[in-house]
Amino acid sequence: MEGAIPVSEYKYRVEVCFTPGHYPLYAQDMGIVVVIDVLRATSAMVAAFENGVDRIIPVSTVEEARRYIGRPGYIAAAERNGEVVEGFDYGNSPLAYVGQDLRGKTIVMTTTNGTKAINMAKDARKLVVGSFLNLSALSEWLVQQNDNILLLCSGWKDKFNLEDSVYAGAVMERLLDSGKFGVEEDSSIAAKYMFMSARDNFLSILKAAPRRRRIEQLQLLPDAKYCLTPDQSRVIPILRDGELVRMEMSQP
Amino acid sequence: MEGAIPVSEYKYRVEVCFTPGHYPLYAQDMGIVVVIDVLRATSAMVAAFENGVDRIIPVSTVEEARRYIGRPGYIAAAERNGEVVEGFDYGNSPLAYVGQDLRGKTIVMTTTNGTKAINMAKDARKLVVGSFLNLSALSEWLVQQNDNILLLCSGWKDKFNLEDSVYAGAVMERLLDSGKFGVEEDSSIAAKYMFMSARDNFLSILKAAPRRRRIEQLQLLPDAKYCLTPDQSRVIPILRDGELVRMEMSQP
Repeated sequence: MEGAIPVSEYKYRVEVCFTPGHYPLYAQDMGIVVVIDVLRATSAMVAAFENGVDRIIPVSTVEEARRYIGRPGYIAAAERNGEVVEGFDYGNSPLAYVGQDLRGKTIVMTTTNGTKAINMAKDARKLVVGSFLNLSALSEWLVQQNDNILLLCSGWKDKFNLEDSVYAGAVMERLLDSGKFGVEEDSSIAAKYMFMSARDNFLSILKAAPRRRRIEQLQLLPDAKYCLTPDQSRVIPILRDGELVRMEMSQP
Repeated sequence: MEGAIPVSEYKYRVEVCFTPGHYPLYAQDMGIVVVIDVLRATSAMVAAFENGVDRIIPVSTVEEARRYIGRPGYIAAAERNGEVVEGFDYGNSPLAYVGQDLRGKTIVMTTTNGTKAINMAKDARKLVVGSFLNLSALSEWLVQQNDNILLLCSGWKDKFNLEDSVYAGAVMERLLDSGKFGVEEDSSIAAKYMFMSARDNFLSILKAAPRRRRIEQLQLLPDAKYCLTPDQSRVIPILRDGELVRMEMSQP
């Protein structure tokens, strides 16, 4: 029976995991993990590197981040429930880093979803950070890799979210177009459907989102517009020894 | 800001939960749970009631089901990994029940995903079973209810699956069309996107599914075609004291 089905030839798989809690179900045989938290942690990370920061240390707890408040050379950033945690000057807003000279600085960051996903997948052979800001640069780099790739959505408090999944669909489409990658999981096909529904206007993701989230997101509209604008950066943050450092793709 | 956003007026929510493991994240304030396992457990349940069975007892383990093998008046059904468990005559194939006279019989059934989802949600105020077979009857009944509704997909071994999610989108669209229900969760919007992508031909779900699953499903093609054919039954299985019994909608 199998012989009767046209089987496309591909060398590696690219799959989508919708929530960090499901990571163990999808992690097997996946050498490269792309952590995605479009609104807003991974967008903020790319923006910070784009503005010169040396490294970002993702931590799980507010307490860990708090130890770095006021320490020379460090920026402590903490977000919970979409807001900057009391006592911190930075949360997960990428615009907080734009236009600043952050050269030589280290950011220590904890967020509700994104840094949690990073810590969940920190033992992957390679872990990189994705956002619309570095969509093309990341996709080009991924196509060059000879390994299976898992696109890990950070979701919202372990729930599925729309913008991370649509972004995963956008990356996946570029990888599938290369002919080098294929998919096996239903979640991957679903992400592609979602991307196809939203592709002409990423801001439509906001409009399509349910009322409660739409309201939350519109209160963040400048941030959200920034986070949904593709290809503002050639930087790909990559995890080395527990710290995110800069990897920069040359112009295509 | 909130006042500036047009807010649709609806009384109740209808939401989608993609996997049984996420049920606790979505269950709050949900009075009615619809358990969905399109391929094939909930389709088999509707088919069994359509063919006269009195009641279905969903059990979690093969051992529980095995006790009923050969007991007069009982049919023991057990499926694991898509196959009938050794020693059983029935698994989760709906076609096994079609054309039989099952009046007066009780089925004791355990399946990989569907009965697990039922047991997860068994404390809901009302629990009913959905499949393409009873799509219209179920949707009509749901629209009459005055309560929040959770569409609980059984998935595949805790992973997201496409056919359950597309079916949830189909039910949701009918509930949204009534104007009585609205959504708050991103998963619900995503299910609607998926349904819109697949609506013209439910068998396209099979074709869209990734290679490995497509092969598995094609081996079940007669079953799959049957499970994806809407509106073959006006029966809605409903849980009462741990047993599924027949509720029948009159013709519209």
